[in-house]
Amino acid sequence: MTKSLKANQLELGVCYYPEHWPEDLWENDYERMRELGFSYVRLAEFAWSIFEPEEGNFSFNFFDRAIDLAHKHGLKVILGTPTATPPAWLTHKYPEVLNVSQQGVQFQHGMRRHYNYNSKKYRELSARIVTKMAEHYHNHPAVVGWQIDNELNCEIDVFYSDADHESFRSWVKNKYGTLDKVNKAWGTTFWSQTYTSWDQIFLPRPTVNGSKNPHQLLDEKRFISDSAISYAKLQADLIRKFAPNHWITTNGMFNHLDNHRLTDELLDFFAYDSYPNFSKIFPDQGEKPLLDRKWSWNLSAVRSISNNFAIFEQQSGPGGWVDRIEQPSPLPGQIRLWTYQSVAHGADMILYFRWRTATFGSEIYWHGINDYHNQPNRRIAEIKEISQELMRIKEKIVGAKFKAEAAIVTDYDNQWDGETDKWYGPYIKQSEQEWFKAFQYNHIPVDALNFDENTNLSDLTNYKLLVYPHPAIMTDRKANLLKQYVEKGGKVVFGCRSGYKDVNGQPYMLPFPGVLRELVGVTVEDFTRVGEYQEIPEAEWATEIFQVNQFNEVLNNDNNTEILARYKNAYYENKPAAVKSQVGKGTTIYFGGVFTLDIANVILDELEISKTVESIELSEAVELAIREKDGVEYIFLLNYSDSSQTITFKEEWNELITKTKLNGTIEMKGFEVLILERRRK
Amino acid sequence: MTKSLKANQLELGVCYYPEHWPEDLWENDYERMRELGFSYVRLAEFAWSIFEPEEGNFSFNFFDRAIDLAHKHGLKVILGTPTATPPAWLTHKYPEVLNVSQQGVQFQHGMRRHYNYNSKKYRELSARIVTKMAEHYHNHPAVVGWQIDNELNCEIDVFYSDADHESFRSWVKNKYGTLDKVNKAWGTTFWSQTYTSWDQIFLPRPTVNGSKNPHQLLDEKRFISDSAISYAKLQADLIRKFAPNHWITTNGMFNHLDNHRLTDELLDFFAYDSYPNFSKIFPDQGEKPLLDRKWSWNLSAVRSISNNFAIFEQQSGPGGWVDRIEQPSPLPGQIRLWTYQSVAHGADMILYFRWRTATFGSEIYWHGINDYHNQPNRRIAEIKEISQELMRIKEKIVGAKFKAEAAIVTDYDNQWDGETDKWYGPYIKQSEQEWFKAFQYNHIPVDALNFDENTNLSDLTNYKLLVYPHPAIMTDRKANLLKQYVEKGGKVVFGCRSGYKDVNGQPYMLPFPGVLRELVGVTVEDFTRVGEYQEIPEAEWATEIFQVNQFNEVLNNDNNTEILARYKNAYYENKPAAVKSQVGKGTTIYFGGVFTLDIANVILDELEISKTVESIELSEAVELAIREKDGVEYIFLLNYSDSSQTITFKEEWNELITKTKLNGTIEMKGFEVLILERRRK
Amino acid sequence: MTKSLKANQLELGVCYYPEHWPEDLWENDYERMRELGFSYVRLAEFAWSIFEPEEGNFSFNFFDRAIDLAHKHGLKVILGTPTATPPAWLTHKYPEVLNVSQQGVQFQHGMRRHYNYNSKKYRELSARIVTKMAEHYHNHPAVVGWQIDNELNCEIDVFYSDADHESFRSWVKNKYGTLDKVNKAWGTTFWSQTYTSWDQIFLPRPTVNGSKNPHQLLDEKRFISDSAISYAKLQADLIRKFAPNHWITTNGMFNHLDNHRLTDELLDFFAYDSYPNFSKIFPDQGEKPLLDRKWSWNLSAVRSISNNFAIFEQQSGPGGWVDRIEQPSPLPGQIRLWTYQSVAHGADMILYFRWRTATFGSEIYWHGINDYHNQPNRRIAEIKEISQELMRIKEKIVGAKFKAEAAIVTDYDNQWDGETDKWYGPYIKQSEQEWFKAFQYNHIPVDALNFDENTNLSDLTNYKLLVYPHPAIMTDRKANLLKQYVEKGGKVVFGCRSGYKDVNGQPYMLPFPGVLRELVGVTVEDFTRVGEYQEIPEAEWATEIFQVNQFNEVLNNDNNTEILARYKNAYYENKPAAVKSQVGKGTTIYFGGVFTLDIANVILDELEISKTVESIELSEAVELAIREKDGVEYIFLLNYSDSSQTITFKEEWNELITKTKLNGTIEMKGFEVLILERRRK
Repeated sequence: MTKSLKANQLELGVCYYPEHWPEDLWENDYERMRELGFSYVRLAEFAWSIFEPEEGNFSFNFFDRAIDLAHKHGLKVILGTPTATPPAWLTHKYPEVLNVSQQGVQFQHGMRRHYNYNSKKYRELSARIVTKMAEHYHNHPAVVGWQIDNELNCEIDVFYSDADHESFRSWVKNKYGTLDKVNKAWGTTFWSQTYTSWDQIFLPRPTVNGSKNPHQLLDEKRFISDSAISYAKLQADLIRKFAPNHWITTNGMFNHLDNHRLTDELLDFFAYDSYPNFSKIFPDQGEKPLLDRKWSWNLSAVRSISNNFAIFEQQSGPGGWVDRIEQPSPLPGQIRLWTYQSVAHGADMILYFRWRTATFGSEIYWHGINDYHNQPNRRIAEIKEISQELMRIKEKIVGAKFKAEAAIVTDYDNQWDGETDKWYGPYIKQSEQEWFKAFQYNHIPVDALNFDENTNLSDLTNYKLLVYPHPAIMTDRKANLLKQYVEKGGKVVFGCRSGYKDVNGQPYMLPFPGVLRELVGVTVEDFTRVGEYQEIPEAEWATEIFQVNQFNEVLNNDNNTEILARYKNAYYENKPAAVKSQVGKGTTIYFGGVFTLDIANVILDELEISKTVESIELSEAVELAIREKDGVEYIFLLNYSDSSQTITFKEEWNELITKTKLNGTIEMKGFEVLILERRRK
Repeated sequence: MTKSLKANQLELGVCYYPEHWPEDLWENDYERMRELGFSYVRLAEFAWSIFEPEEGNFSFNFFDRAIDLAHKHGLKVILGTPTATPPAWLTHKYPEVLNVSQQGVQFQHGMRRHYNYNSKKYRELSARIVTKMAEHYHNHPAVVGWQIDNELNCEIDVFYSDADHESFRSWVKNKYGTLDKVNKAWGTTFWSQTYTSWDQIFLPRPTVNGSKNPHQLLDEKRFISDSAISYAKLQADLIRKFAPNHWITTNGMFNHLDNHRLTDELLDFFAYDSYPNFSKIFPDQGEKPLLDRKWSWNLSAVRSISNNFAIFEQQSGPGGWVDRIEQPSPLPGQIRLWTYQSVAHGADMILYFRWRTATFGSEIYWHGINDYHNQPNRRIAEIKEISQELMRIKEKIVGAKFKAEAAIVTDYDNQWDGETDKWYGPYIKQSEQEWFKAFQYNHIPVDALNFDENTNLSDLTNYKLLVYPHPAIMTDRKANLLKQYVEKGGKVVFGCRSGYKDVNGQPYMLPFPGVLRELVGVTVEDFTRVGEYQEIPEAEWATEIFQVNQFNEVLNNDNNTEILARYKNAYYENKPAAVKSQVGKGTTIYFGGVFTLDIANVILDELEISKTVESIELSEAVELAIREKDGVEYIFLLNYSDSSQTITFKEEWNELITKTKLNGTIEMKGFEVLILERRRK
Repeated sequence: MTKSLKANQLELGVCYYPEHWPEDLWENDYERMRELGFSYVRLAEFAWSIFEPEEGNFSFNFFDRAIDLAHKHGLKVILGTPTATPPAWLTHKYPEVLNVSQQGVQFQHGMRRHYNYNSKKYRELSARIVTKMAEHYHNHPAVVGWQIDNELNCEIDVFYSDADHESFRSWVKNKYGTLDKVNKAWGTTFWSQTYTSWDQIFLPRPTVNGSKNPHQLLDEKRFISDSAISYAKLQADLIRKFAPNHWITTNGMFNHLDNHRLTDELLDFFAYDSYPNFSKIFPDQGEKPLLDRKWSWNLSAVRSISNNFAIFEQQSGPGGWVDRIEQPSPLPGQIRLWTYQSVAHGADMILYFRWRTATFGSEIYWHGINDYHNQPNRRIAEIKEISQELMRIKEKIVGAKFKAEAAIVTDYDNQWDGETDKWYGPYIKQSEQEWFKAFQYNHIPVDALNFDENTNLSDLTNYKLLVYPHPAIMTDRKANLLKQYVEKGGKVVFGCRSGYKDVNGQPYMLPFPGVLRELVGVTVEDFTRVGEYQEIPEAEWATEIFQVNQFNEVLNNDNNTEILARYKNAYYENKPAAVKSQVGKGTTIYFGGVFTLDIANVILDELEISKTVESIELSEAVELAIREKDGVEYIFLLNYSDSSQTITFKEEWNELITKTKLNGTIEMKGFEVLILERRRK
């Protein structure tokens, strides 16, 4: 069901803002793009003021010239709809289109994304500009596709304008039908919150100490996601109507948005903006951090949306706004490494951000390929090298699918509910991260699997192993599906806090782990958070002892389960901390804590899941990723370290970039990339 | 003058929310409560929507059924007035009842306590619901008493609605009579703040950098307290009128509220909600922290309001909201320990919070006795044990008074002024805490003594020793009373910053310590705060050297005072840091710094105050508390440690719980409790 | 062009608030002031309510009495216009005069400085009170001068009332003439921010994540400065008209205000409020911090505004508000030290703040010379000593000019742009601080030089050495002037991030360092910020190795430049980090990093700049400052340490305070001051 980019070859391109530059630079810019081997140029995403300088007064001259010239130089054009940045005249005349803070402060002109999705006026004006653009460019020979808006829900992902409150009221009415059902779903009996009239329904508003009804907060996220999708659909429908031969996508992957549904319902494929250099200012924490390699997890999530995808913004310099996000420069070799990281995970089109660093506005330090001065630099040289290399592999790899035998399971309900619920939400991110490290360092390619009400058994049986760390919200349907998966031989791993909440985020009147109890063969006898000021509990697992911080469940196992680990201290010393259960042909493991890298490693051992490619020995610093097409596997080796790594091949391999044969022990230089080819046996 | 709970026996009960559960669970719930030995059930505190689902449309069916069934099972019912949680229809129709932030943001439906005390409409609607409930239940055989609202001033203790600004204006007019007096009391000559018309008077409003007139801020707190009391009085008066045979109380002990006056004027006794497990997430700081034992200080403060009192919410599981307050579970034995802590300090009725953990709303992690699943658990077992034990002692102890020879003196003026004044306010809490530790670890039971304008000499002469750490605000009347107390043989200890401010918080034009100068026999020659970035000064006291951080007063002693300590460094090396003065038959000690545990210990030695029960040797981990009735003392020993403690009895004692005789050296297990009985000689 | 205080002798005085005290204290207060040798008393700065208790109803009786009595006691009076503190009646009746937060919250009565500069009504009412006061006091024999308002832009330096938005619109219109020019200057093509109508122009308003257009933010600061100056001019013009024989100044030195232009256009001289004790709560960071000695840098900045100046508030006790700024007390000797610090740097009049500590209001802990109790104390004694000493030197030193051969160059454009721009702004303050330390510890008196469009070549050629750390904004005119200066033999030092932005804060389309490239003989080949989580790079300079944190520029030097330092690690190992270039008779040094004390020291060595007075050997703790008049130099030695310092004179000197001759090695006590006299050879 996933929508995928369908390309004939792996292609490169760049984001370009002709409106930032004197027109006499354009031709030279386009020529140099072609010299770098670029096929695509993305234009116009923030250019509403140029297309519609006054209300209802449309002008295409400027971009006609820019696009015609691109066409002359053989570049294919992707157009952004410019709705992320409404013009000053628009927000000044129609302030109701603006987003508003929960406290009631209207966000004004001067940044971007200051509009709300539900304003009738904004939808009307958005529809008109998109219609005009699609009508105008639908048969331009250069134009091939569209990016809707830019980075939906970036910068801000909550909305409290009057239009949003009103739409939420309708949404709730539509979802529940009666106030009785609303009251039940939101548990409004608690604290006398019962609603007796629809006009009492609002999005969460300011409260005395900031806390809100948690079930309403969950619906708020669902509503925001639906609002964004509805707004994108308005645009997509018009583009399909007026430019039926062009493809449609959007870029970014932000919160409070079901990107899977967005893509399934509206887009031809999904596009992502990849900036691994954020890891230098917001590195992941904990043992052996992944840093830029964490973007492989992000790309896995993108791949769960769109098996083959595009990168619409691939980092090509140091990033930063004038007043924040102060990134160091990518090191020599990292732009290349990150490009291959995208390719290894399924990207078939890559646009670099941006052609030349802007000389005005908030992004004068979001450096592009070219510097302000437009002279040669090391980034241009590095991208030239990448481009030439990709020429050698672009037809082989295009369309090849990423190959994984394991998946980390994610879902929107628990992500959104867990944003409020501090009793399990924060564990999800940590456990996903630690599990992803375990798969990475053991060289086991892994997918992200989005588990929603459309998921069916065959989506699960693609994998030998599913890790579903803390699915507090668990419906009977999903629990059943997991049971069938295990019975057929699948392996599932759960952490603490699984299975105890219904779809509204309300605990079942059942012992933990609620509806998963039968599947995992335990009930939780006792539990405790681990406080900030106390000794960290430990558990003994196999012959090793691990800290089990944050949350401890004391397990009460059924007869047919095997105890894998026991607590070593606290008042529940010697009680089970993890158990294994055989169900049909499969296995479940339930662990009453939050996962760490060490514990994930022990579980992989316990389940006999080991490295996917037996004949290559790698150090932890090197990622192994596999894409496959027509029975041929392309094995990507990516060295994220700046130092060289020793790797050993136990058989001979063809390396695609260098067109050499590799065997035995070799040194892989810092930031180096190898692509090995083999026909699957 | 203190109002006290008057009970025939020490009784247990529980908070129950029938509206949260299917009606078919009620009977079983009530039965199980009786099995646990509970006599009381508290109902209805947040149920306005159920009693008045539409404006003016009252319905008692639901709670009639719940109360009748409770009655059938022999439970006595305490009713909460439901005004802490106005219904959605109410705040939607009458937004003027809502509380507002100082910045002008209205707090909306979705939490609790979002109303203000001064709205005419809210007072009218509150009066009506309370009247209806009191009329309806005044002669119900199960109903015995009322809880007004819930936890007044919890969550938020400032109020800036229009109604509050207007009421404050009247309050100021009423208090001062003329603007001249207001201007003088608030020192408005400073910075041209003079008021020339009543309509210029407001509660403190937003200012350019947040600072406000400090004297107005003190009156703001007094006004808030008066507003809360006035609002509670509205309800109390109606209950007394319509249900004259029921007692009235309220629960909690929060800031900006003179709970002493509230109780004296309106209530039959005071009730407290005791959650010692907060110490696991907000532990007290400093050397040898008290942790859950700090609740003994809180209970001492409660006792100063109401000599015998009730606990309306005794912690019975891990506490927490969905989005905050993430407590670990109480350890096995701690629920029992904390129950006895309440009893030892004067509680004669204890209601556990709550019967069963809620499955919806903000408090799904504020766990009750029963889990969601309603099956047996260790908390039920522990409470069952407590209940059975209390059966043995319930008639002996009931009504017995806590016995202390020393008191730490507190007052509202300094607490409220000190909230603004960073030049002494923060020292109060620290010194109280350190002194309480000293009393605890030396096994000297201590009271909190609230010193206000109603306090008279006989209130003071109950004690051998008064510790009044930093009473910056000190009136002549109070200074005089303290002088009389000392002259009659009393001992008083003061810390730095004492005595220099009048009742408006304005410094006297006198040398420090202002109006206490004569009593303590010193003036302050020089002083300095201790800065964050400098070496901490020291003082030599007896033969030991102590750090004197935060504030140093250089004392200039009169001839008839004895120097106890001298500074060891800084430019005031060798100058006096503490002095002792004989006044009449008594003694004063003035220390020019903020107290630490070590310094408090030295002062206890100096004043020859040692452990109260000579014949028992205890380790520091064990609290000793005494209640006395009819010439019999009940000595509570409470072990707050999870490890066993060696204690030695030099004579034989009857232990009440085990009905055994104890003598010699024994081991007291972790979290263990003993109650010894002796007839006073 | 600098306006200077012109006095006949160095005089002392004090800030006095008669309105805070019973009138019967005044006479004694004035007498005691005279006994302390004070000539001046500053009155009335916050007394609007007294002069105009009701709108349009003026009353001078109170201050007539206070001023007449001062006159009787031979004191000269400085009057403050009371506009920093509008009366309650004013802001209550005309709320449009209030300042407003960017979020729209109006700041209310209760603090000070809650008005805005652009309200027509406030300007009208300010004009009237100033006119009335000037008319009334213009020929009073005691009154000599005026202080306009108090500490302009203190407490708050941004303004968002409607009047400010409207004035900004006019200001922009006036500055740019056309919207095209606005759009170009603000780079509004970026993110579709183009303005198409003047009514779309506002001061920066709330945006979704707080970021704003950086070029508009720069103009915002310029506008605020112009607004403050325009408001002060309104008052200055009226005082000049109605009290033409009085001088005019204002006090303080706060942000978003071009104090140089303010002084040049409106004032007779500039006055500063000096509180070195802030260093005890906000000490400067880094190696060998300056602490209170940092005020020598502040005084240097004051001197760049007004060669000889007044101190209108010289700290005379511990400072602090009730709720913040909790300063320790000055140590004995520090008030004297700080007084001489002011004198050494060019102060010819010093008023202590304040006569007696207030007993009400926010500043009851902003202690004055006298305590609340009005009895003798050590501060009075210390000031008495200073006063007597100054009698000996007051005619010699008055009017003498500070003498420096080097200057640290500052300017408002980079300060204001750098407030937003985190890619160079924070480096300015650090590098200024480190360079000032280097000059201080090497005993090289240094000036601050404000470099603006009025600066000309002769302003530069006063100095052998200019250090201009990070002038990102650099115009052609300024670059040219610097070139001429160097060609004539001057030496200039630049740090990273120099020369690359135009006057709107937009990067030039040139290699770094932009318009300075030719002058310094390098281009920047590559650059990177140094991230928070990485190893700190190092550079080798002479034979030493230094950390180069925060920002690294990899330099590409021209043939005629000499490489001074090379990076020792990172991917740019061995690349140049600093170069020296000979230009005409002069020298430039360009360093691709942020300065540290060590690096500044190395550069001073490289440029052969050593201590100014060869014949005195000092430890680092002692500051050396020089004032000169009529060919005589007065060399101030100030010991900021509390311990004694060994100093060696290689020739004999006259010391002015002690009237002794000094030679050879002596011990200078903690906080001691010496003033040496020599006729310049």
